[in-house]
Amino acid sequence: MKILKGSVTAPKGFLASGVHSGLKKNKEKLDLALIYSEVSCQAAGVFTRNKVKANPVLVDKHHLEDLRAQAIIVNSGNANACTGEAGLKNAYYMAQLAGNALGIPSSDVLVASTGVIGVPLKISCIEENINPLVKGLASNGHIYAREAIMTTDTIKKECAVSFKIGESTVTLGGMSKGSGMIHPNMGTMLGFITTDLNITGEMLQEALKEAVNKSFNRISVDGDESTNDSVLILANGLCNNSIIDEKNNDYYEFLDALNYVCVELAKKIAKDGEGANKLIECRVIGCECEDDGVKLAKSVVKSNLVKTAVFGSDANWGRILCALGYSGVDFKEEQVDVSFESSKGYIEVYKKGVPLEFSEEKAKKILEDNEITILVNMNQGSEKAFAFGCDLSYEYVRINGDYRT
Amino acid sequence: MKILKGSVTAPKGFLASGVHSGLKKNKEKLDLALIYSEVSCQAAGVFTRNKVKANPVLVDKHHLEDLRAQAIIVNSGNANACTGEAGLKNAYYMAQLAGNALGIPSSDVLVASTGVIGVPLKISCIEENINPLVKGLASNGHIYAREAIMTTDTIKKECAVSFKIGESTVTLGGMSKGSGMIHPNMGTMLGFITTDLNITGEMLQEALKEAVNKSFNRISVDGDESTNDSVLILANGLCNNSIIDEKNNDYYEFLDALNYVCVELAKKIAKDGEGANKLIECRVIGCECEDDGVKLAKSVVKSNLVKTAVFGSDANWGRILCALGYSGVDFKEEQVDVSFESSKGYIEVYKKGVPLEFSEEKAKKILEDNEITILVNMNQGSEKAFAFGCDLSYEYVRINGDYRT
Repeated sequence: MKILKGSVTAPKGFLASGVHSGLKKNKEKLDLALIYSEVSCQAAGVFTRNKVKANPVLVDKHHLEDLRAQAIIVNSGNANACTGEAGLKNAYYMAQLAGNALGIPSSDVLVASTGVIGVPLKISCIEENINPLVKGLASNGHIYAREAIMTTDTIKKECAVSFKIGESTVTLGGMSKGSGMIHPNMGTMLGFITTDLNITGEMLQEALKEAVNKSFNRISVDGDESTNDSVLILANGLCNNSIIDEKNNDYYEFLDALNYVCVELAKKIAKDGEGANKLIECRVIGCECEDDGVKLAKSVVKSNLVKTAVFGSDANWGRILCALGYSGVDFKEEQVDVSFESSKGYIEVYKKGVPLEFSEEKAKKILEDNEITILVNMNQGSEKAFAFGCDLSYEYVRINGDYRT
Repeated sequence: MKILKGSVTAPKGFLASGVHSGLKKNKEKLDLALIYSEVSCQAAGVFTRNKVKANPVLVDKHHLEDLRAQAIIVNSGNANACTGEAGLKNAYYMAQLAGNALGIPSSDVLVASTGVIGVPLKISCIEENINPLVKGLASNGHIYAREAIMTTDTIKKECAVSFKIGESTVTLGGMSKGSGMIHPNMGTMLGFITTDLNITGEMLQEALKEAVNKSFNRISVDGDESTNDSVLILANGLCNNSIIDEKNNDYYEFLDALNYVCVELAKKIAKDGEGANKLIECRVIGCECEDDGVKLAKSVVKSNLVKTAVFGSDANWGRILCALGYSGVDFKEEQVDVSFESSKGYIEVYKKGVPLEFSEEKAKKILEDNEITILVNMNQGSEKAFAFGCDLSYEYVRINGDYRT
């Protein structure tokens, strides 16, 4: 596998664009993006499990019934969620506007929205800007698209890789957005992945589900799960590998690459959590089963008390034990080890149920890094899992105390 | 039912005291409390469901096997949790020290601790101060005891009521502590209740469990559940009512009073959440069952995004819908109503799935109050429930970013 520059336009046959449509007040901010494949694609999606689903999610579920699509239109600045009948009509209309301008059926257009909930979408902004958006489509258009999908994001999130299947070089590219309201089951988090792989829709859906479970569903910023979360993938088949229609070696090659891209995109979201300064990875080993490990690791990265301790570079490992304790997993605390690691070093703080004496100074230095790993060994099995989160800062409170106004 | 002043020493035959033992560094802060009944009591307890249980919790479960006790010793400044074998020995030794000084069996002494996790308890502090603590026992000693159980608490939390059973006046008093790490299933939260009621241990345990479920288990400060949470009750029978040994009218009279005391103590904890400025009550009506209502209401008061919106007096009701949506309860969003209420007024913001136009100015005024009610009507049944929480402020981050040092 080779790491490439670029994102959704890296695979053959994909173009993208981004414009300012007026959905965001600030005229310098792009807020409308388009991803387009020159040929029709196999397509798949994974969506929020929130009972309250945004209108674009409902449209995508409908449009993906045939596992085919050719374009994705995305707006930021408005989530088009909790906006009633009119909102659903607007989401379908967005697909229609893009379909008409591109000359493809509107049922082959997927839709995504992110922004404030419960405010009617100004559909005129999209009507008036659909032509410039389509005209702007270009093979370097990802640099506009990745900006147009941002809300409170502060860094661009993209990733691309290539790998070989027989003689064919398959390319995979993706971009994501998200920083607040992010949690297991995907808080306001959008991910768009493109590939020139030749694969059936069923296998594509299966692979996406597996990869999302080990990446986007392993991050937590604030424990809230959004109404809009979606990860969409388009595969246009232009790299001409022999089609993947079962879980053979080629499938697993692809799954590895897809996992890599999804984890990178997810990590970038966690690191860019609203007001976050530090990426926290909790790695749990020695579990009875992977499910337990996921519950334990998520419980730690989700804890407000762990997050504020990391913010303060305070090695308050008691809060980690506490979070493990309410994860719902059964274990004996007298078997557990806890340590901290970062590029600044490694320190053990708790071993087999006993607090260790350790240098607070050394621990502080380790925790002052901007990527922290919390290592937990349950010592009761051979399975493992990980989860990503971020610290909780004053800035998080400031951003969310007054998001709408 | 009559509301009285005072707390754990209000019922007949109860004394209390509090001293500074050195467990807290600041010499002006009390950190060791004692509650004592002049005669042996029926006793009951409800404890944290965290898998990692503090040592005092293990001792209390053991000492409550016979449903009898006569005293409760409580320290603040150290949680005696995750402190291994030595910590468990110390917790038993605390009971023994108090038992010896009071001249009662150590198995009739209950123990509670609150403070930092994972630091060995300096048992010498308690050894050296057990005599002054016992000597200080007095019928107005609750004013010292309520202080000695505080950690980051900023207000005293107490409540007392009386009611009649036949000719007998029953008195019920309680005090509580807790402000951080508070959540359903009782985050570092201690509650102590005394009564002169004559009741069997079995009925006392049953009533406490019912009352805790509708009070302490309905509050959330930061979603973390502590290793130390305990609510303990002592009933010494001195008011001479005919004994309650079944769920008769007298039992339900008592349960009403106990519910009242527990809800008051729980509300005070939520309002005094670390860094909190506002009490949030979420009242959910129109549910299919009470359990659904509890899940929905707790999901709302637990959401960091709802909490920060209330902090900023921002009527961001979309976040409420979102929190309802990931509560795990099934519902149709097009049936839901949402409104806000406080002493400053009432405003509807969402009705039957449609956002209402409302005055942002009026909503802001309502949310600037320090006690906010979020009203949700699910419109799909006749059951209801409530939960309490608090806003999330800069101060919460400051307090928890550096709690130990």
